[in-house]
Amino acid sequence: MFKKILYPTDFSDAAAKALNYIKQLKEAGSQEVVLLHVINQRIIDGLMRHAMLDEDIMRWRDKAAEIAEESLAEMSKELENVGFTVKMIIKTGYPGNVILDVEKRENPSIIVIGSHGRSNLGDMLLGSVSDRVVRKSKRPVLVIKRDTES
Amino acid sequence: MFKKILYPTDFSDAAAKALNYIKQLKEAGSQEVVLLHVINQRIIDGLMRHAMLDEDIMRWRDKAAEIAEESLAEMSKELENVGFTVKMIIKTGYPGNVILDVEKRENPSIIVIGSHGRSNLGDMLLGSVSDRVVRKSKRPVLVIKRDTES
Repeated sequence: MFKKILYPTDFSDAAAKALNYIKQLKEAGSQEVVLLHVINQRIIDGLMRHAMLDEDIMRWRDKAAEIAEESLAEMSKELENVGFTVKMIIKTGYPGNVILDVEKRENPSIIVIGSHGRSNLGDMLLGSVSDRVVRKSKRPVLVIKRDTES
Repeated sequence: MFKKILYPTDFSDAAAKALNYIKQLKEAGSQEVVLLHVINQRIIDGLMRHAMLDEDIMRWRDKAAEIAEESLAEMSKELENVGFTVKMIIKTGYPGNVILDVEKRENPSIIVIGSHGRSNLGDMLLGSVSDRVVRKSKRPVLVIKRDTES
């Protein structure tokens, strides 16, 4: 029921909170975690609109991928230490779409995702990723709010 | 982290699926379940618009409460048998509002809720209850889809 977890992370506080819940789910039979980071195409679109050179955009993207790889590798170690099998995926695209695509391919038992809440416009855009996943996914979704007291 | 579960149920298939996840969460430390059924004020509003007599509406409401009580008592027994402490709440109101009110009062660690998906208009209205709870709740919310294969 909780065997294989898909965990999309944008490295935010909300996503970090979600990771704690994943560790706790181990006791309920979770064995495998697919760590997913999406390099946000919306940011790339923004850079292009601001007429940044293709070369510079590529450099930004490579840097983002490098940082993501390091961060996921760290999480991966942390989860392996408590007994999980871990797979890392880094993709560029629109986060909601990529998460739903990866869900289809990986067929997880559950998705665990952080939600930023609604305190400002940036957060609203980010928050809508988890909304979209809850609405469109066929799998159970556990949404962890940034403001959760725990 | 999963100690006290708020489980709103409308006795649908989706809600029944959610109950299985609650049982599994026992292994991750869940101890207490608050069973909540909301007698839907929207249905009462509809009956009033169709000029049903107050007396008949009261009778419908009492019957709905009676059935809910029996159903929750059955679930309660089922959950107590596997070691949960259970509390039953039946209220009349708009489901989303009542769930969020009860959440504030009961302060659960997590809400586990079924979602009907979107196959027809009736389902859309019902589905919006879980959407609203995900959006407005401060607690983690586990959404179980009716169509989840498990």
